[in-house]
Amino acid sequence: MAPRKAPDAGRRSDRSRRAIYDAALALVGENGYRRTTIEGIAARAGVGKQTIYRWWPSKAAVLMEAFLDMAARAAGQTAPEGDEDADSRNGGEYGIPDTGDLAADLKLVLRATVDELNDPLMEAPTRALTAEGIVDAALGAEFVEKLLDPQLALYVTRLRAAQEAGHLRADADPRTALELLIAPLTHRWLLRTLPLTHAYADTIVDYALGGLAPRP
Amino acid sequence: MAPRKAPDAGRRSDRSRRAIYDAALALVGENGYRRTTIEGIAARAGVGKQTIYRWWPSKAAVLMEAFLDMAARAAGQTAPEGDEDADSRNGGEYGIPDTGDLAADLKLVLRATVDELNDPLMEAPTRALTAEGIVDAALGAEFVEKLLDPQLALYVTRLRAAQEAGHLRADADPRTALELLIAPLTHRWLLRTLPLTHAYADTIVDYALGGLAPRP
Repeated sequence: MAPRKAPDAGRRSDRSRRAIYDAALALVGENGYRRTTIEGIAARAGVGKQTIYRWWPSKAAVLMEAFLDMAARAAGQTAPEGDEDADSRNGGEYGIPDTGDLAADLKLVLRATVDELNDPLMEAPTRALTAEGIVDAALGAEFVEKLLDPQLALYVTRLRAAQEAGHLRADADPRTALELLIAPLTHRWLLRTLPLTHAYADTIVDYALGGLAPRP
Repeated sequence: MAPRKAPDAGRRSDRSRRAIYDAALALVGENGYRRTTIEGIAARAGVGKQTIYRWWPSKAAVLMEAFLDMAARAAGQTAPEGDEDADSRNGGEYGIPDTGDLAADLKLVLRATVDELNDPLMEAPTRALTAEGIVDAALGAEFVEKLLDPQLALYVTRLRAAQEAGHLRADADPRTALELLIAPLTHRWLLRTLPLTHAYADTIVDYALGGLAPRP
């Protein structure tokens, strides 16, 4: 749920904003990124297209915020009630827990990622946006910078803490190491090679931490 | 180079076949999968569209063979001269070398994968096809089955041999283990997060085999 704000003539109304996000995500999921238009989003949301143009400079900007909001709602299901700090709703700001057990913490967050990727609400729009970013380098770069990199930064933080605690190889680069954890999930999901399950997430963590070579 | 075949009225001419593949790959790279048509391929290749319809049942079938041929040409650069067995040109039939040094063999093949992914000839059509498979489940499944799975099977074979030689953890599942090796490369390439280099391929192999946790 979006936090309630005091009425403010200069602020987007929460109801219109939510309707616009929902319409944008639905249309991009149904028709793809290119065939989604500001006019179409406005019509589906029941607002005038000038309302959208007043608040966002482009279709990409609407969708970016719709995705940030969707990620925040997914993350916010475990967030404190009544949190009114918009930054803290930015999907990744809650961070990866640090219980001192790196494997357990990574399994928790990768299982949650599995659930998000398998969520029918997110499936179609996320696929449409990812597919467009793969062929449109400028759009892809924007989404990596604004949506993906902030999530990856959380892994860097957690892996650095693990390194300081002696739970990650001292010579491992956390930014590279995280790719062994998240890329397999993305690969399975995008290419639909095999089922994406909690058990798979657990196995990836075990293999990545323990290594595929036999331990002496 | 395609192997030379004896003239045969029932066989596609090599020259037309190559022209059709080249046209199909160029058009899908320039315009995307959906806007590529049999008519467009025929016009660009300088053949009648009935020529294409006679040899392939669908646009997807033309592209599938064009990709198989492109992969075979990439793999065939190191293949024996004069090989006339069409099956052996199928991109993956040469297998992953087994010198007894698992890390070295994996680095060799992953470096070659980096080169293929960074090849400008393959870049646009491979991105277009991958993007379409991400949003079109039926097309995606067909390409996974016919293009990706045969390549993954080569990793399974090599990892099983390593397991028998005591170079891979006895309890590791080779089909899952290979995803730690190939998914990070795919992730970087598809999402363009960071440069995809030989050094990166080497690091992924070292991290995956050695594990991210400190060794006792």
